[in-house]
Amino acid sequence: MQQLDLQIIAAKLESYEETIISRLIDRAQFHADLRCYEPGHSGFSGETNRSLFDLRLHYQEKTDSLFGRFCVPEERPFTRGLEPPKRKVILPKVSLNIDDYNKVSVTDSVLESYLKLIPKLCPEGDDLQYGSCVEKDVYAVQAIARRIHYGALYVGESKYRSNPDLYSSLINKCDTEAIIELITRKDVEDQIIERIRIKTGKTQETVNRLIRNTIDPDTVAEFYLNVIIPLTKKGEVLYLMNRGKN
Amino acid sequence: MQQLDLQIIAAKLESYEETIISRLIDRAQFHADLRCYEPGHSGFSGETNRSLFDLRLHYQEKTDSLFGRFCVPEERPFTRGLEPPKRKVILPKVSLNIDDYNKVSVTDSVLESYLKLIPKLCPEGDDLQYGSCVEKDVYAVQAIARRIHYGALYVGESKYRSNPDLYSSLINKCDTEAIIELITRKDVEDQIIERIRIKTGKTQETVNRLIRNTIDPDTVAEFYLNVIIPLTKKGEVLYLMNRGKN
Repeated sequence: MQQLDLQIIAAKLESYEETIISRLIDRAQFHADLRCYEPGHSGFSGETNRSLFDLRLHYQEKTDSLFGRFCVPEERPFTRGLEPPKRKVILPKVSLNIDDYNKVSVTDSVLESYLKLIPKLCPEGDDLQYGSCVEKDVYAVQAIARRIHYGALYVGESKYRSNPDLYSSLINKCDTEAIIELITRKDVEDQIIERIRIKTGKTQETVNRLIRNTIDPDTVAEFYLNVIIPLTKKGEVLYLMNRGKN
Repeated sequence: MQQLDLQIIAAKLESYEETIISRLIDRAQFHADLRCYEPGHSGFSGETNRSLFDLRLHYQEKTDSLFGRFCVPEERPFTRGLEPPKRKVILPKVSLNIDDYNKVSVTDSVLESYLKLIPKLCPEGDDLQYGSCVEKDVYAVQAIARRIHYGALYVGESKYRSNPDLYSSLINKCDTEAIIELITRKDVEDQIIERIRIKTGKTQETVNRLIRNTIDPDTVAEFYLNVIIPLTKKGEVLYLMNRGKN
């Protein structure tokens, strides 16, 4: 089945790289503007506890949910308790084996790591462009989370099927360390990180630096190394530990 | 004033090109899916008249408006009658001279032209990914409209200030044909179109074509030639004809 062909999955994960890089570049057109992330300083009428970023993410996901985004396995929401879609969503048949996709969700960790990335990604200081910042933030975290959950689900299932006996036995023993070791391919990870570095540079080659901020390819490569790849593997383990028995 | 330095404005317009190209590439990952644009076929509960695209655009702009997007001069909404922002928006001082930015709005024409672009941009046929299509559509039309209205407003004001007497006299005579002629710089337009062609190709150089659709640089260049540049000039004329007298 094409969905579980590891070469196709890898190509899909690769194709998400352009989106992530582009969304991070979009965000970096504005300063760090850390006030956007401070609870209680949203400046939003009637909202005294949340940050402007939290609010924007919540509003965006409310709309997204009505249109059916979270019916897609790799689209895991950051927000709890969203309303169900207002339309019937038709999806291609999914070859995963898990009763609730949210069991692989690592969105809380995505958020935490993303917020730590901001000061490294953006020009220092405050330009008061809070509305634009949080809009870009939302699109960036959604792109990052999509890549991670796609990997978690489809790489997880694909690896399981490559050796069901071995994986079943480790799952039954709850030996998550051995699972992590088994799913880790250091050479592939190194390749991804190097590719990210090159793509981030190349994407920005033709921009006009008079007006457009650029982001450091090393910063994005490190984010892949320290966040995106480890969280994908964490998600794979969650998938395998929660996988149905059939 | 930096805002009205024609070199800075041109650089800003240039910087919007990356965003437009990237949003069009995002959309082209899905098929044309023309059903998304058919009124009465949204499949959205309780909505019998509108298309899924109309609905998505409306929901997105409702959120955007609450967060203050349309306080920004170049962000003109496609939707009428939106609620005012729920937060106080602080903007850099704007050096424009017009009492209502919506007087330069060409969003209806943007929509019409964009919908004609879809069949040329995307793979033919229907992949049922309607939710994703209309999400990408909204981000694409917003990026296109922002570029057009930014040009309309700031190029308009900048040109006026370069020769107030001449422009005032043409404005008073309502001689829009002469204004169009005066604001047209064929050599600059040709440069922009050629740059778009090159950027669209270069941006896609490193993608993995096994999994990712690409868009034709000529299609984007033609869209600039036939839609983005003419609508920007139409907006400039609207700006000049509605400009305050001071």
